[in-house]
Amino acid sequence: MVRQKTAAEAEEASHDRLSIRLDLESGARIGPGKIAVLEEIARSGSLSAAGRAMGMSYRRIWELVDDLNRSLGAVLVEKTAGGSGGGGAVLTEAGRAVITCYHGIEDDAERAAAPHIARLREALAAG
Amino acid sequence: MVRQKTAAEAEEASHDRLSIRLDLESGARIGPGKIAVLEEIARSGSLSAAGRAMGMSYRRIWELVDDLNRSLGAVLVEKTAGGSGGGGAVLTEAGRAVITCYHGIEDDAERAAAPHIARLREALAAG
Repeated sequence: MVRQKTAAEAEEASHDRLSIRLDLESGARIGPGKIAVLEEIARSGSLSAAGRAMGMSYRRIWELVDDLNRSLGAVLVEKTAGGSGGGGAVLTEAGRAVITCYHGIEDDAERAAAPHIARLREALAAG
Repeated sequence: MVRQKTAAEAEEASHDRLSIRLDLESGARIGPGKIAVLEEIARSGSLSAAGRAMGMSYRRIWELVDDLNRSLGAVLVEKTAGGSGGGGAVLTEAGRAVITCYHGIEDDAERAAAPHIARLREALAAG
C-alpha cells in the first residue's frame, strides 16, 4: 500500500520540511518529482491522466517512468489493455516498493532531523 | 567544529547517496550548494577565494550568504578587516551551527535510509 499521511499527522508536524533525493549505486535518481509522478499514475490509472494532472506531456511522463525502469532494472509501471479510449497503466509491486521506500526514508529522516534543527535554533538564538 | 568524514568512513559507506534540502519554517532553504559555500569560506577565509574555488562570482557568493543571514535571522559570515589585499571572512558560531546541523541530518538520514533501500532492492530483485 502507498503510505499516505493522515490529515492529523500532517497537522501536528512542524513546518520544517526535508526534500530528499536518492542517488542509488545503480545510477537511479529518485526525488520528489518522480515519486509524485508514480503516485499520480497509481491514483489516476493512466499515464495521460497523470500527465494532465501534473501539467506534463504524456511523453515526459513516460520518459520519467522509463528512466526509472532502466536505472532500477525493473518494470515499475505496466500499461494495461484498454477499450476504445486507449489503455491505462498500473504500478507493479516494484513500483509500489519505490514509493514505500522513498516515504519511509522521508519519514525517518524528518524524525531524525528534529533534534538537529532544535539545536540549530538554540545556536541561532544565542548568536 | 565542522564535521568531516574520515577517509575510512567514506570508504566503508555504500555508494547510495542522499541529497537533502532543508526548508525551515522561517523560509530558509539550506541545501548542498549553500553548505559547500559556507565550508569553502571557512576553508579559504575569504569570500572571493571561495568564489574562485567554486567558479562563482563574489557577488553570487555574497548573495547566497546574505540570503541565509536574512532567512535565518543571524549573521553566519563576518567580514574581517584586512591588509592591502582586502579583508577576509570567517564563519560565526551560527554559521558553524548551520553546517553541523546539516551534516548531522545527512548522517542520520543516510543511516535511516539503509534498511529502506535494502528492502527496495529485495522487492526489485523479486519483481
